[in-house]
Order: sequence, then structure tokens, then C-alpha cells
Amino acid sequence: MYNPVQDADIAYFQSFIPSDRLFCRDDIVDDYFHDELSGTQHAPELLIFAASTGEVSRIMQYAYAHSIPVTTRGSGTGLVGAAVAVKGGILLCTAKMNQILELDPENLTVTVQPGVLLMELAEYVESHQLFYPPDPGEKSATIGGNISTNAGGMRAVRYGVTRDYVRALTVVLASGEVVQLGGKVVKNSSGYSLLNLMIGSEGTLGIITEAVLKLLPLPEKTISLLVPFETMEAALAAVPLIARSGTNPTAIEYMSRDTILFAEDYLGKQFPDTAYDAYLLLTFDGNSLSEIEQNYSRAADICIENGAIDAYFIDTDERKKSVWDARGAFLEAIKASTDEMDECDVVVPRSRIADFITYTHALAKELDIRIPSFGHAGDGNLHIYICRDGLDDATWQQKLSTAFEKMYAKSAAFGGQVSGEHGIGYAKKPYLHEHLGTVQMDLMRGIKAAFDPKYILNPEKIV
Amino acid sequence: MYNPVQDADIAYFQSFIPSDRLFCRDDIVDDYFHDELSGTQHAPELLIFAASTGEVSRIMQYAYAHSIPVTTRGSGTGLVGAAVAVKGGILLCTAKMNQILELDPENLTVTVQPGVLLMELAEYVESHQLFYPPDPGEKSATIGGNISTNAGGMRAVRYGVTRDYVRALTVVLASGEVVQLGGKVVKNSSGYSLLNLMIGSEGTLGIITEAVLKLLPLPEKTISLLVPFETMEAALAAVPLIARSGTNPTAIEYMSRDTILFAEDYLGKQFPDTAYDAYLLLTFDGNSLSEIEQNYSRAADICIENGAIDAYFIDTDERKKSVWDARGAFLEAIKASTDEMDECDVVVPRSRIADFITYTHALAKELDIRIPSFGHAGDGNLHIYICRDGLDDATWQQKLSTAFEKMYAKSAAFGGQVSGEHGIGYAKKPYLHEHLGTVQMDLMRGIKAAFDPKYILNPEKIV
Repeated sequence: MYNPVQDADIAYFQSFIPSDRLFCRDDIVDDYFHDELSGTQHAPELLIFAASTGEVSRIMQYAYAHSIPVTTRGSGTGLVGAAVAVKGGILLCTAKMNQILELDPENLTVTVQPGVLLMELAEYVESHQLFYPPDPGEKSATIGGNISTNAGGMRAVRYGVTRDYVRALTVVLASGEVVQLGGKVVKNSSGYSLLNLMIGSEGTLGIITEAVLKLLPLPEKTISLLVPFETMEAALAAVPLIARSGTNPTAIEYMSRDTILFAEDYLGKQFPDTAYDAYLLLTFDGNSLSEIEQNYSRAADICIENGAIDAYFIDTDERKKSVWDARGAFLEAIKASTDEMDECDVVVPRSRIADFITYTHALAKELDIRIPSFGHAGDGNLHIYICRDGLDDATWQQKLSTAFEKMYAKSAAFGGQVSGEHGIGYAKKPYLHEHLGTVQMDLMRGIKAAFDPKYILNPEKIV
Repeated sequence: MYNPVQDADIAYFQSFIPSDRLFCRDDIVDDYFHDELSGTQHAPELLIFAASTGEVSRIMQYAYAHSIPVTTRGSGTGLVGAAVAVKGGILLCTAKMNQILELDPENLTVTVQPGVLLMELAEYVESHQLFYPPDPGEKSATIGGNISTNAGGMRAVRYGVTRDYVRALTVVLASGEVVQLGGKVVKNSSGYSLLNLMIGSEGTLGIITEAVLKLLPLPEKTISLLVPFETMEAALAAVPLIARSGTNPTAIEYMSRDTILFAEDYLGKQFPDTAYDAYLLLTFDGNSLSEIEQNYSRAADICIENGAIDAYFIDTDERKKSVWDARGAFLEAIKASTDEMDECDVVVPRSRIADFITYTHALAKELDIRIPSFGHAGDGNLHIYICRDGLDDATWQQKLSTAFEKMYAKSAAFGGQVSGEHGIGYAKKPYLHEHLGTVQMDLMRGIKAAFDPKYILNPEKIV
């Protein structure tokens, strides 16, 4: 079905791609064989750092004509193997297409290449008093990768996810054709939303080479509340009450003492408080303290009325940094606590988070493994880690797959979905197929076939 | 390709659909031959008022097996012929599936059947102190129709469009299979977004039989500012300044004196002020006057600093009603001012609205026809009406098509799209195809074929 990359193919690519952006076979370092969680591994035959839409189009025309698979990769921070070239072929890295092309203050948009990092984007727009609200924990992810997984992040409670901030995309299709999806417009009812189909399609329907993103004016004031509770159940019971209070929090994060202690260890820094089992971290933003103070005071009152021990006001830069650095380090800290781990990124209705965490605690006991978790409580999206902790290979694989099967089944029973924000990629495919069933998967396969009849774009992912 | 409805087919449907929900051929009143703008006309062979998902599934299984086209209709308030059975067959009306099934305050969702009217939905959720933000002018539209066109409305500036408030859909596919897309979850990165593909697909990919909608807490205070300017250009030049000011308006509507006078005539009611050529109508909402007063004061200042004559504070229910009643009556008022009209619903980047309106003024002069307009200035979405004003048929058709061709070409040149919120349906198909080109239309046809290989769902629409 696919052709291996041959010397003649390499010679063709060498004819227009300089050698510092083109690497063959044994010259490819193994960082490019896997993503952030290395469960899925495969070597590409060719690694190309793309420079422009035109170049990507030329590469795709050739790959299409010669049936060579092409897997797109940003900075490789994914967790589900989406950016691994599992069928070999070309790994097309867009990380060097990292220019910010235009800021349009009249239309409140920024136009970027896909390789711009989240942290670079944030710094740039904020220096212009503008704001790109999606805020995934991994700031060294590329915006192209974020669009490809419809990344979520901390501020989704108030501001929504990446999908809500993509106005337009330039996409190179499997055939090499270039299309512009969407535009610098706020509304659009002009046929099927190919734009929304491309968002979250993990490089299987096209290659994003440019994006127009929606911005907001930068809120001038942000404050956080750190709210300790005696128990996880009490903390999470307060979440729906806050959500419907009209206090408009930007973020509602849940953290257990266990996870905070990992982060303290990992960062070598103290967290403001670790006396209690469970914490909510709430954020509020607005133009002034006076605009938001009614809101955060009322949210603090709701917490206190519902079992919170206290509500610490986090206003200084130093305290904010200590709390949010810890929150940002959770994944790395848990990773550092074990030899290997895999993750489950289910999203359940907000009302079922406590039930789901309780279930993972019981499961950890039942399987005699460690399953730490943390989560975006305000949007029902949990990050749950299954830790190997020195288990032999056979036991680990067996416990891991049992844990996954049970957790995805429980999520489905609670009305949840397989992935809240990390995507399906290669690793979560069986669970997606199990969850959605044949009819929906056949629709997805039909869409895939319409976009990529030769299945050369990121093969073996999602569908 | 399609089979006509035969007596045996009718007998089959009569076997499970009572006679008060099933109408054949000459028994179908001609209200069901067209939508709100009657340019597109065709009689269905059978009109069925569906009662349940199961029944719709049974109808589709039969229609699929017998290659009978099925066009879905809500309350028929569309403007582009999307709900007209242009190939005959079955017109499936979901207007009687009008139950509100569940309010979930913990997850802030409401579950509805597709025939619930916008005004019923608003009244219901607001009686529970909750808020469904999308606010299209036509309140007697069904929610199913709103989802099918991705309707926008007044509050899109702050809150976004219908797409942003659909959490889940129950959909009957062409084959009669029933799928659940999405869920009561806030984030979702679980494969291609079939949910977002279904939204805005105007009944061509499936029949929506249930929807879970996202709600917000109801803002306790809403105020409006009516801001007169000497000229349209001055009014619209203020819009991007307001948008990026961080004052967070809910709505920014533009209205010209002409249009206001039509509405005064039509309603027989006085508008608060008609002394100037151009007006902006701004709305702000929040939990209290104190929370929003900094914002609306600053927005008023920005207007005054940029040429506004004044900024009238619209706070009493009576004044609010007078202003918003007029705004809501614009379409009907223009319609009443002429014998026939057709509309153009382009959306352009916010920065180009004034240029576009200037262009329509020049075009009206050039073609010697009347082209009144009004618009959602804050989101670049204009509603432009070409009035027949007694022209003979040949002249009217010729001027209408010239006007459309020129306006859509100008919109494209400004980076705009064919439809901001009214959809493509039947009437706007040539302009969509012209605008998007073969590659994108082929992708859409591929999607259509994956969902509806026999092309029986709402044939001749969009693709």
C-alpha cells in the first residue's frame, strides 16, 4: 500500500530542501521516534523541517504521487503518539515555521505559522495588550499541535478551548492542494465547517501551515483563590455550585495533597499550603479589581458555606508563581516519580468528577497500582496517570490495559468521552472505536477517504 | 435517481403515523412550499410531522430503502430555501417535537427536542435564572433550525454563535441509524468533530432529533446605549475601537435612519431618536450595574471621542422595548416596504463593514434599485436587502443577479464569506461554489457522500 522512501525520492527532496532541514534514515536522532510519553515508537525514513506552505505543497504532491506516508509533527509534546511515524515514510516537522506573520488590532486577530510555541504566542500578544485565552499546561507545544488536538487547558471554564479561537487555517491537503478554511470573520454559515473538521484531526486530514487566531483584549487584573477542603468529595461538590453562581471564574482546578507533594519535590519549592487533602484553585480576571471583587468574594463564600476550610487570596506575583508553577509541573512531577507511566484524559460531565476519581482510587486498590490524578475540575477533564513503579513488562501491560478498559467503560457510563484535550492519536484508538461504535467510525473513515483517499496523511491515527 | 412517493409508500407511513400528522399531495397547504423569503418554491409529495427519534429513524429507513428524498423543516423561518422540498418527496417537519426534556443545573445544560422555539427556550431557561446566549432576531425559529444554520444573532460579539452552545446532538442518519454526537462535556478531543460538522449542515447530513445545549448563569443586569453619529462612516469607525477596548459589549448593532424610519412606520411606534443618519446600539450585561458601569461608561467615552453626538442610556424596560422592538422589526419592515425582496447575508472582517456598506450604496445608484441594509456591526455580518419595488420580472431577475454577483465578489475581495448566519440552502449555492472553488466543494461532496450516499437528505442544498 505504501512505498518505502527510496534513494531517488531522497534525491528529489534534496533538490529543493537544504541539508540542514533534511535528514535521512540513520541520521535521524531518536527524539523523533516518539512523543512526550514514549509508549508509541517508530523511526521515520526521512525527517524534513518544512519552511513554507509552498514547500509543504510540493512535498505532498510528490508523496501523494509516490504513496509515501507523511506524519506531521510540531514540538513533539503530545501524549498519545499522534506525531509518531508509525508507518515510516516522511516525518514533516513544522517547528521551524515559527513566524508570527501579522497582528490585526482592528479585527483582533493574529496570523501565525504552525511552529510558533504557545509561550511565544502568549508573550507576543500580551506585549500588545492582547490575550490568547487557551492555556494548556505545556507551554512549549506548538500552536499547530494545539489546533490539531483541539487543546483545552486551564482557562476553558470561562474562555473555551482552542477550537473557539481559530478563525482561519491554511491547509495543505494530501494531494498537495492548498485551501484556505474560514477567514477573519466572526460568524460563518457558509457550507460544512471544514475549519472545525480540521481542528482536532491530528494531522490526518491535512497539514496546517498557517492559522488566523482570535484574540481578546488583555484583562488587566487576574487573581487566584486557593481553597483547601478536608476531602476530595467536598472540594468537587463545590464545583457545580461555583459554575452556576454567575461569578464567572476563568479556571477551576482540582489538586490533591499527594500531587502537590510530588510537585514540591520535583520543583524543590514550597507550595503555600499542604495541610489538607484537597484543594481547588480558582482564577478570576477582569479590567480592575473592583470589577471582579464581587465575583471572587461570592465564590469564596460559596466554598466556605460548602465545607472549605478557608480561601487564600493569591494576589502577589510571587504567590501566583508558586501556585501555578506547581500546577504546571504536575505531569512532569508524576512522571519523575515512576519509571514509566501512561495517561487517561477522559472528560466527564462536571457533576461526575468526584465519582470518577473515587472510582480510580478503588481501581488502584483493586489492581494494586498507583493511579495519581489531577484535573480541570471546572470542565470535567481529568488527567489520570497509571504508574509502572518497577512492574515487570507482562504484569505492567496487563494491568495497564485492564485499568484503561475499566476507566474508559466507566467514563462512557458517566456520559463522558475518551479524550478531553489530548486527542486520540495511536494509543487511544481502540478506546475511541469501542466508545463511538461502528456507525460513527464509518462516518469518520468516509471523511478520511474524502480528504486523503490514499491514506498517506498520518496513517493509523484516529481512524 | 429518486423515486416518487407512491400509494404503497403512503399506506406504509399511514400504518404508524396518525392522520393528523400526515398530509398527502393536494392536502398540503402551500405554506409548506416555501420559507420566509419565497424565492424558492416546491411542493412536497408528503408532509409528516414527526413525533420521536424512533419514528424519524423508521421513516428514514424506509425512505433510504426506497430512494425517496427527505427535507427537514422547522418553523420555516429560513431565508435561503433550505427547508423547501425542491425534489419533492417527504417534507419532515420537526415543529411538533417541541418538548424541553431536561434542565441539568449541575452541568448547566438543557436538553430539548428540535421543534422548541427560540422564544420558548429563552423564557424557560430564564425562569430558572439561566441564559441561552444566542439571540437571532427571529424568535419563532426552532432550535433545530438554528443549529442547522449555525444561527448567530445579536449577542455574538460577546457570546459567540449557536455552534458554541451545542454540547450534544441526537441525529438520525440517512440510513435511519441513530447516533449521539458529543455529550454533556465541556471539552472534547475524541476524533473528528462530527458534532461540529452536523452544526450548520442544513439538514443535508442528518436529522437532528434532540440537542443538549450549554447554558450560562443569567446576567442580572442588562443596559443598552443608543449612540447617534453624523455619518455611517463615523459610526462604523468606532466599532473596532470599542471591540478592542476591553469593555466587553454583548452586542454592537448598526442602524441607519432610513431603516429606523421603516421600522417606525411598520410598528406604528416612535424610536427614541431619529435626528441623525447613523446609530450604534450597544449592550452590556453583568451581575450588577456596578460591575458593568466602568465598561459602558468607557465605551460611551470612546464613542464621544470618535465623533458620536451623544450616548443615550437605555435602562428602563419601556425604552429598551422601543429600541429592541425596532431592531427586531427591521427585516419585516423592509419586507413591508416593497413587493418582493431578496437578501445578502455576507460577513466581512469587522474592519471592512463601512467599506462594504459604501459599496452597496454605490451599487444601488449604479443599478437604480433600493438596497437598504442593517447589520451586526460588532461581528461584520450585514443583512442587505435588494428591493423589487415594482420592477417587471425580467428587469428584476437581471438586476438581482447582477447585484448578488457584485456583492459576493466584493465580499470575497474584502476577505469575507458568503453567509454569516443565514446559511446557503438552495438560493446561495452558486455563490458558495464560486467563492470556495472546486477543491473545497469536492471535499464537501465527499463528506456528503460519506453521510448520505443516496443523496436523499435535503437534496440540492449546499453541495
